[in-house]
Amino acid sequence: MDGDTGSDIGRESLALHAAHSGKLEIRSKVPLTNRVDLSRAYTPGVAEVCREIARNPESVWKYTLKSNTIAIISDGTAVLGLGDIGPSAGIPVMEGKAILFKEFAGIDAFPICLDAMSEDLVRIIRSLAPVFGGINLEDIAAPACFEIEEELQDLGIPVMHDDQHGAAVAVLAALINACKVTGKRFEDLKVVVCGAGAAGYAICRLLKCIGYDTQSCTPVQELIACDTIGIIYRGRPGLYDNKYKFILGDETNSVHRTGTLADAMRGADAFIGVSVANLVSEEMIRSMGPDPIVLSLANPVPEIMPDKARNAGAAVVGTGRSDYPNQVNNVLVFPGIFRGALDARATRITDEMKIAVAHAIAGCVSCPTPEKILPDPLDRGVVTAVAEAVKLAAIACGVARSHT
Amino acid sequence: MDGDTGSDIGRESLALHAAHSGKLEIRSKVPLTNRVDLSRAYTPGVAEVCREIARNPESVWKYTLKSNTIAIISDGTAVLGLGDIGPSAGIPVMEGKAILFKEFAGIDAFPICLDAMSEDLVRIIRSLAPVFGGINLEDIAAPACFEIEEELQDLGIPVMHDDQHGAAVAVLAALINACKVTGKRFEDLKVVVCGAGAAGYAICRLLKCIGYDTQSCTPVQELIACDTIGIIYRGRPGLYDNKYKFILGDETNSVHRTGTLADAMRGADAFIGVSVANLVSEEMIRSMGPDPIVLSLANPVPEIMPDKARNAGAAVVGTGRSDYPNQVNNVLVFPGIFRGALDARATRITDEMKIAVAHAIAGCVSCPTPEKILPDPLDRGVVTAVAEAVKLAAIACGVARSHT
Repeated sequence: MDGDTGSDIGRESLALHAAHSGKLEIRSKVPLTNRVDLSRAYTPGVAEVCREIARNPESVWKYTLKSNTIAIISDGTAVLGLGDIGPSAGIPVMEGKAILFKEFAGIDAFPICLDAMSEDLVRIIRSLAPVFGGINLEDIAAPACFEIEEELQDLGIPVMHDDQHGAAVAVLAALINACKVTGKRFEDLKVVVCGAGAAGYAICRLLKCIGYDTQSCTPVQELIACDTIGIIYRGRPGLYDNKYKFILGDETNSVHRTGTLADAMRGADAFIGVSVANLVSEEMIRSMGPDPIVLSLANPVPEIMPDKARNAGAAVVGTGRSDYPNQVNNVLVFPGIFRGALDARATRITDEMKIAVAHAIAGCVSCPTPEKILPDPLDRGVVTAVAEAVKLAAIACGVARSHT
Repeated sequence: MDGDTGSDIGRESLALHAAHSGKLEIRSKVPLTNRVDLSRAYTPGVAEVCREIARNPESVWKYTLKSNTIAIISDGTAVLGLGDIGPSAGIPVMEGKAILFKEFAGIDAFPICLDAMSEDLVRIIRSLAPVFGGINLEDIAAPACFEIEEELQDLGIPVMHDDQHGAAVAVLAALINACKVTGKRFEDLKVVVCGAGAAGYAICRLLKCIGYDTQSCTPVQELIACDTIGIIYRGRPGLYDNKYKFILGDETNSVHRTGTLADAMRGADAFIGVSVANLVSEEMIRSMGPDPIVLSLANPVPEIMPDKARNAGAAVVGTGRSDYPNQVNNVLVFPGIFRGALDARATRITDEMKIAVAHAIAGCVSCPTPEKILPDPLDRGVVTAVAEAVKLAAIACGVARSHT
């Protein structure tokens, strides 16, 4: 299985990283070959640039890297599916994401891996803001990730936890087109979300419009969330210990179903898995409603392999993997959302912007089929469409400082 | 005067910065054109690299950007001669320094401008360490800069405040060759240092070997430090308020001179100015000993202009400026010192390493003259010589983790 220890791809990846000592480098955009160059890029000329920014703080966007630079910030507490492996072991992911930002969206992104207690993260991240035009939070464990992102929304630059919203937006885009393929209406969907971590919570929040106060948000009819214990329902013992699971108990599962994941899936229109390998059997797929949609996103091994899901009657199957059709991947989301946010000089990424992005991504597939509900992550047109949607939404909801 | 508001060079610098939105960009060192590339640089392959670093923490040096990346960290409290203009207004300096690191030493350097109270800086900088192989502290006001640098020496990577040690090492190199030119013996020098901020304190410390416990350090015979009040002497009222000025009072000025800068300079062999414009008159130069050495480093306008100093009998004159002979500039120091420290994987930058660097820089000028006591900052041979000296010194004093 790819991603496993000792696999070919793992060995090739180790060799690639060792050959280059990592993956990113920093380059000058200005010439530095003689004294005149030096005097403009550095002292004494640079003093005038500093003075100008001190006089007119907004000009930092004009004269420095800020307007095109974001931080990818992690504390290494939830790296990929590897868990709390620490900030140093998380560097390869953040560095990889940084070069994807450049490659896909022309954004200069730098990896910041913080060796810090989670209660200190908000203060540290605030202090880092001057250099950056945006902050992509990454691989921070739930529930700390929710609190941290919330507390940073007043920073004046977009702060988005990609594990939450990148995943949620990609899932929404996939569901929009899966509905077209299966003839279902989005607002009639009965959905089961398996996994109540960062991605699971954000998906539930977006699909049920929990906390969303925008007219562009349409909730699915019914949503049941499951965690390792089983179905989340109001009053489940222990639910008060985690504010975010408590919210899920309160805002989802209006039919007050209890039991296991298998109980939740019976009769459902869509299954969304953001949990771990091999949790779902063919039997469980067969128990779903007609033409079920199965987005089985656990990585590298899905909750159920695509061929098994199809065997069991799934009408549309998506995974997180690039070697099967319908890869539901946040690389469809994060480059364009930050490109648009930087271009609009947005002060934050709003719910409207996220919903607009899902529709823009879905719209990139002109004629969805069961084998193609989402555009190819390597399709460069996606970033342009997403960025444009983000800019328009940012202007519409009044968080854009640039309207050009 | 260059560097002044509205000067040509200032206008050109503003135009350059606006044209490129700053000066640095981030680039990928690995290909990212197809699914195979993506699977090696990012998921799923990257998971194996993360696992390897989690298993073997030292391998972060092998597989990530850390081995060639440093942070340039400032809080914007003492930017150039502009004072406490804040972290955003300091960005152009840090960004400029970052591209110099790349251009001169092939080091990937990223500017971190912190919006934080000085008492929080140590904790924040500690948390940033995982990604970086070294930290260049920059433009942090005295005396906080001394405490912060001291407290971070146990971080396991080199942490150097360049305003202190870059300046001090460049001055030592200049003095070594100025002695050759004037026939003076270094250990007989009577030196006046004007300015007791970051640079002034570090220069005094190095020239008097204050706190140095290395045999490679030779102190000058006599050193008198001056601040805005005048000569610093033991028991001067108010000196207890600042630990570092107290140390200077205790360790310099053994002749217990009191009075003004003019009083200090009478009979001195060398004047080192790291203060402000136009403090020194021709008369004061004439009052010095025979063939005086004048390093007048205030920027952009020196304590005394070179032509005036020469008129008044100075045998060797240096400034901080590129448009006069003998530019005493820390660009001679910082690229090579971090290059060598990274190559040796040094855990810190020791006093031995700094002294070795000064001798290496002085040695780059095979036959010093009054017009050329230092190599040209654009001479690429300097970095190589400095880095080699740093590596050897790091190995000799046991702080190198790599001996290749």
